[in-house]
Amino acid sequence: MTYCVGLTLDEGLVYIADTRTNAGVDDISTFRKLHAVDTPGERSMTLLSSGNLATTQMVINILKDRMKSCSNRDAHLMNASSMFEAAKIVGTTLRNVINTFSENERSTEKKFDGTMILGGQIIGDEPRLFLIYPEGNFIEASIDTPYFQIGETKYGRPILIRAYNRQMGFEDAVKLLLVSFDSTIKANLSVGLPLDLQIYKRGSFCTGMQFRIEKDNEYFNMISSGWGEALRNAFDRLPDFSFETSIDPNLAKIQSRAA
Amino acid sequence: MTYCVGLTLDEGLVYIADTRTNAGVDDISTFRKLHAVDTPGERSMTLLSSGNLATTQMVINILKDRMKSCSNRDAHLMNASSMFEAAKIVGTTLRNVINTFSENERSTEKKFDGTMILGGQIIGDEPRLFLIYPEGNFIEASIDTPYFQIGETKYGRPILIRAYNRQMGFEDAVKLLLVSFDSTIKANLSVGLPLDLQIYKRGSFCTGMQFRIEKDNEYFNMISSGWGEALRNAFDRLPDFSFETSIDPNLAKIQSRAA
Repeated sequence: MTYCVGLTLDEGLVYIADTRTNAGVDDISTFRKLHAVDTPGERSMTLLSSGNLATTQMVINILKDRMKSCSNRDAHLMNASSMFEAAKIVGTTLRNVINTFSENERSTEKKFDGTMILGGQIIGDEPRLFLIYPEGNFIEASIDTPYFQIGETKYGRPILIRAYNRQMGFEDAVKLLLVSFDSTIKANLSVGLPLDLQIYKRGSFCTGMQFRIEKDNEYFNMISSGWGEALRNAFDRLPDFSFETSIDPNLAKIQSRAA
Repeated sequence: MTYCVGLTLDEGLVYIADTRTNAGVDDISTFRKLHAVDTPGERSMTLLSSGNLATTQMVINILKDRMKSCSNRDAHLMNASSMFEAAKIVGTTLRNVINTFSENERSTEKKFDGTMILGGQIIGDEPRLFLIYPEGNFIEASIDTPYFQIGETKYGRPILIRAYNRQMGFEDAVKLLLVSFDSTIKANLSVGLPLDLQIYKRGSFCTGMQFRIEKDNEYFNMISSGWGEALRNAFDRLPDFSFETSIDPNLAKIQSRAA
């Protein structure tokens, strides 16, 4: 499994990805799932990937190879005229790779599937964020849906829903994402440290600060232990439930036999 | 979808289930998923069900019919010699119903599956809690795994992991479960109010207090709005992340181009 999030903020974009891959719980490895490319001063893009590792690595390699080959007239990420065009390129490549692998596969199980998040900015346009499906189609983040998650999305979602706001700064956003990842890592063994993070500052048109949170990162460990305590405190401070007063006696069917 | 939890406490057992069923988002109904039976003074059992509604309703009906028919020598919940025997009866019935429905089904999709939680106590034994799979086999809760969730389990799990403890009283447990349900309801449309709750007091050998949390329940609405604020406060009180001090400069690969 995997957990990745791409987040839009007024300040720009934030990306985070875990690095754990597994082919069964007895076969666990560390692979990078966050890939950034840029033409400084003109464009910057970042891809996050989940799903079959052979598929997503091949997609990344095809996209990078195409950028390198000067004679290649095919559209690629560095000559796409807009982020929308870039998302189309990624979507088509992803779908083609999946179709190639699946051709000789008899089972109907979608074992070669992958899902990606593409974010970035090209000069003349706003920063944009896309969620790209295995079928090659995609959706774009908006004011109403300002972030995308892929992989193991559920455990870390409640805190994103409650604490995200568009105006928060990069450092608050990183804190929020680390809390969301901590909840996920605690509940799903197949999501694990280290974590890759990247910041894209609106209008900078180059790959922003990138860093890795390793197992011995003091801040992450502080968040991880502090969040459990903070949750318990928050829970304790909520008003207490009472069998006498919290249930409307007219609506509740109370059987008093056990009282 | 569905969300149900069965929880073991020193004081006894707590059960909670939502009541929403759907055959697509355009076809939503309310059905009870919590069913309790007892022989006062001797035994009390509660079943929670998730999955295909036709399957789980048929299982409940077969189990209840068998209890009523006096001439029936088959084992049933009211003559099972132990909770283990009762779990076997439920498991076998569940598997048989699924197999019957699936026989004429050509697709390999497991569309008639159901999963159940069975809890209760029979005189001479401790309270016990089982998770019963569609295959008819089952596992029992223990000190290490003291509760079971079925259905949409993930959104509500982080708070259970952090705030549950065996020594908590019934009222605290209800509060905890309502927070867990609130997170789930906020994230998954197919889990919805009203909620059915039931308490089983250790050694009481009869169905305990049962009540329903309706949409206009003031306490639930207070928890629902209070928890969002409590989470944001807890988040704010966590130490802040800083690009300067929270990343070990020796480990982090910081690109300063965007700074």
